Amino acid sequence: MDSITVFAPATVANVACGFDIFGFAVDNPGDQITLTARDEPGVRITDIIGDEGRLPRETSRNTAGIAIQTYLKHINRTDVGVDIVLHKQMPLGSGMGSSAASSVAGVYAINELLGRPLPIMKLLPFAMEGERIASGSAHADNVAPSLLGGFVVIRSYQPLDVIRIETPASLFCTLVHPDIEVNTKDARFILKNEVSLKNTIIQMGNVAGLIAGLMTPDYDLISRSLVDVIIEPVRAILIPEFNEAKQAALDNGALGCSISGSGPSMFALSRSAEIAERVGAAMQQAFLSVGITSEAYVSQINRQGPKVLVGEQVPS
Amino acid sequence: MDSITVFAPATVANVACGFDIFGFAVDNPGDQITLTARDEPGVRITDIIGDEGRLPRETSRNTAGIAIQTYLKHINRTDVGVDIVLHKQMPLGSGMGSSAASSVAGVYAINELLGRPLPIMKLLPFAMEGERIASGSAHADNVAPSLLGGFVVIRSYQPLDVIRIETPASLFCTLVHPDIEVNTKDARFILKNEVSLKNTIIQMGNVAGLIAGLMTPDYDLISRSLVDVIIEPVRAILIPEFNEAKQAALDNGALGCSISGSGPSMFALSRSAEIAERVGAAMQQAFLSVGITSEAYVSQINRQGPKVLVGEQVPS
Repeated sequence: MDSITVFAPATVANVACGFDIFGFAVDNPGDQITLTARDEPGVRITDIIGDEGRLPRETSRNTAGIAIQTYLKHINRTDVGVDIVLHKQMPLGSGMGSSAASSVAGVYAINELLGRPLPIMKLLPFAMEGERIASGSAHADNVAPSLLGGFVVIRSYQPLDVIRIETPASLFCTLVHPDIEVNTKDARFILKNEVSLKNTIIQMGNVAGLIAGLMTPDYDLISRSLVDVIIEPVRAILIPEFNEAKQAALDNGALGCSISGSGPSMFALSRSAEIAERVGAAMQQAFLSVGITSEAYVSQINRQGPKVLVGEQVPS
Repeated sequence: MDSITVFAPATVANVACGFDIFGFAVDNPGDQITLTARDEPGVRITDIIGDEGRLPRETSRNTAGIAIQTYLKHINRTDVGVDIVLHKQMPLGSGMGSSAASSVAGVYAINELLGRPLPIMKLLPFAMEGERIASGSAHADNVAPSLLGGFVVIRSYQPLDVIRIETPASLFCTLVHPDIEVNTKDARFILKNEVSLKNTIIQMGNVAGLIAGLMTPDYDLISRSLVDVIIEPVRAILIPEFNEAKQAALDNGALGCSISGSGPSMFALSRSAEIAERVGAAMQQAFLSVGITSEAYVSQINRQGPKVLVGEQVPS
């Protein structure tokens, strides 16, 4: 095989109460990468489509490029030469794990192209390296769900301990991306370094409730637990009409609604595709009422992670 | 029926990472209460056995007394007259939910004696009233598991939201009570009101991991998640030889070990009765090495809550 095209899913990190520890993947949107083997060693970005020229083309500054480079170095295959074509299919700086999806797609693709020398779970550190370039720190809450699919808990960073949680089949996600931009570094900068013990206890209760709600499954418990008393109150001020869009989601039957990652995208979870569609329309309307256009995406929780679109997948 | 004797189980609150939100009941020890109906209205404490005269005999200052009084007032049965004999079968101020067990035993007993006018779940607020007298605040993390049995999450206090989590059948608890005393109010007073965001994230990861570990079940995950970076480092200084006793538990195969409630008792969880017994002996030895005697209790997680020992249980 000398060429492969891989899709990796967008992700919702934090998921209301689980700052830095929860994330899940969605079926739509996502990023697409095509790798083509070439004789000359080295990783080269030949084209990026859909980024309006904003992403770095230099391999060592590009999330997918650096992830692939780090991977090849680890498996002692710096003799490998690949050309990368990246198709960005979601907005940058959106809070939907755009950089993570590119990074995961890249690492997954090169591993498949080489006949899968490493099991999927072992790819995480290389995808995280790509994430480090994009956000300044190697977070796993977008990369892990994009790579593994489903809902994940990052129980610990040192050592890295990622747990996959089963989710109910009829849980649908609405993602709404208002056409404004929030820089991940800024979104992190405005957070306070200290949390009251009282709010820590409330947040822990919701973290426990959400995991129990997902695993049982118990939709009412999921709904009651989708509450963030620590991060959302601070970051919501970066998103115009946040409260109105959230209220519109809840009024239209969403189980819960909060910021996706560091924003400005917002996510809502609902019990059916129909409710999730209605929730999306209502949220878009809330943004539009102050002149902000937006994109809405509705899909199930993605359980698969990356998938090969063109080229041969290594049998698992 | 004019007399009933009820046992209510001791409990481990906090359970390492879950300060104020986690608690579980054990089969042993526990408290025992006997209620005897009498013609004259009013709640009267006729005897308390096993407290060395330290608990208040005045009904409105006794946890079981106040819980029963609050309950009777709520169901408009202040015409009822009962004599209470309380058999304390565990040390006071031990961190094993001594006051909660008395309170729960009392409320459960009066509700059964009257033919169960309220379902068990509805008894929680009255038992919490008893707890308020003992500890200064109406916490539920001892009362709820003592009343409901099993492992519970207090997801929220306002409104009260208690969730029961299934636990693996072969999970055994070791409770070791060193013969020293820690006042619950002191143990709370030394806690800081602020937590670093970093430690909040670590703790949330462990909270999520412990719930997932219990529900899966996954003993390794339970073990990795039984970590408390917020409360234990502060409260451990109140317990001489805490670090040595904890290390002895882990060295002897415990999945995890931490402070039970606000201490000074310590709990450990293990995968078998045999390991739990060995862990208990090793912890007692650690305390004894500095001249501190202790009691050790080994039992499964209690799944039943209170039980009627003498008298007729209302069919459920």
